[in-house]
Amino acid sequence: MIESLNEAFCTLPGVGKKTAQRFVYHLLERNREGGLNLAKALVDAMEHVKHCSSCRTLSEKDICNICANNNRTNTQLCIVETPTDIHAIEQSSVYKGKYFVLSGYLSPIDGIGAAELGLDELEQKLHQQDVEEIILATNATIEGEVTAHYISNMAKHFDVRITRIAHGLPIGGELEYADINTIAHALSGRKDYGG
Amino acid sequence: MIESLNEAFCTLPGVGKKTAQRFVYHLLERNREGGLNLAKALVDAMEHVKHCSSCRTLSEKDICNICANNNRTNTQLCIVETPTDIHAIEQSSVYKGKYFVLSGYLSPIDGIGAAELGLDELEQKLHQQDVEEIILATNATIEGEVTAHYISNMAKHFDVRITRIAHGLPIGGELEYADINTIAHALSGRKDYGG
Repeated sequence: MIESLNEAFCTLPGVGKKTAQRFVYHLLERNREGGLNLAKALVDAMEHVKHCSSCRTLSEKDICNICANNNRTNTQLCIVETPTDIHAIEQSSVYKGKYFVLSGYLSPIDGIGAAELGLDELEQKLHQQDVEEIILATNATIEGEVTAHYISNMAKHFDVRITRIAHGLPIGGELEYADINTIAHALSGRKDYGG
Repeated sequence: MIESLNEAFCTLPGVGKKTAQRFVYHLLERNREGGLNLAKALVDAMEHVKHCSSCRTLSEKDICNICANNNRTNTQLCIVETPTDIHAIEQSSVYKGKYFVLSGYLSPIDGIGAAELGLDELEQKLHQQDVEEIILATNATIEGEVTAHYISNMAKHFDVRITRIAHGLPIGGELEYADINTIAHALSGRKDYGG
């Protein structure tokens, strides 16, 4: 029983044997109620959380809170890889449009193509809705760039502005410690300085 | 629902908001079955794991496997702070005696006294059983040392050898990187060199 709980914890990302053991003994020795609460929360979430039928993010409702919010414009559509990316962007509080979640990136070798990323749905959205701008916010990895490129090719056929989030030095970051790719992007993406 | 699962994960030791989020999205997006398994393992363990009535370690049975093993001698009793310590010692495969788990250390300020550590049971054990040696394997912290000292005082009244596990440089460790307390212990605990 202790061993199976250990193994179950090991399936979590980044959790090895030692960490799992620490979780197990903590719960058994100090917080059994917390362990039962966690079990209940797990069952609730695994059985009832689904995907928003509009933006494909994880949601308890058929339409997620962001898609259902009429104060947010439908004219901007931000394309992200994962639901956590939405969470990160929302925390900056500067974006007031809607989202579309790919749940991954194009990876034909793993059998992840346009259909798996919901690009058909995205195309439909561009047909039916008054989207004026799509913001490609996939990660700055090779896979993220390829996916962004693919989507921009698809979106070209619509009357829509296609933008990509900026890449460069993080705020508070120092040139000295930045990696060469970031510096290259920061230089090639330089802007006129308004003072 | 997603939020409550997040919070439930945050009660685990060393798990913050970001890690909890990573767990939640991993399970929801990639491994819902694993999430339900984890929930089941949690309920099983929280409801059925108890303490061994002989050595106080966590166990599914009334008497744990080590205590029930007749191939292990009753003459040696190793006193440890937690069940994980037993696991660590067992992995070295050099100890063939029994254990006694304190489940903590003496800490009067937190209301943890001799009774909470089961020292009455330990005393009874020394009365009733043929223990010839007790090995104090509490941690080399101030609390662990105080606890070891308290137990050795108690055990003095019995005809029993009292030993403490050795402290010094870890195998493979280098003097250059050892902390001063370890070096001090390594020097004061030096032994005649047999070659």
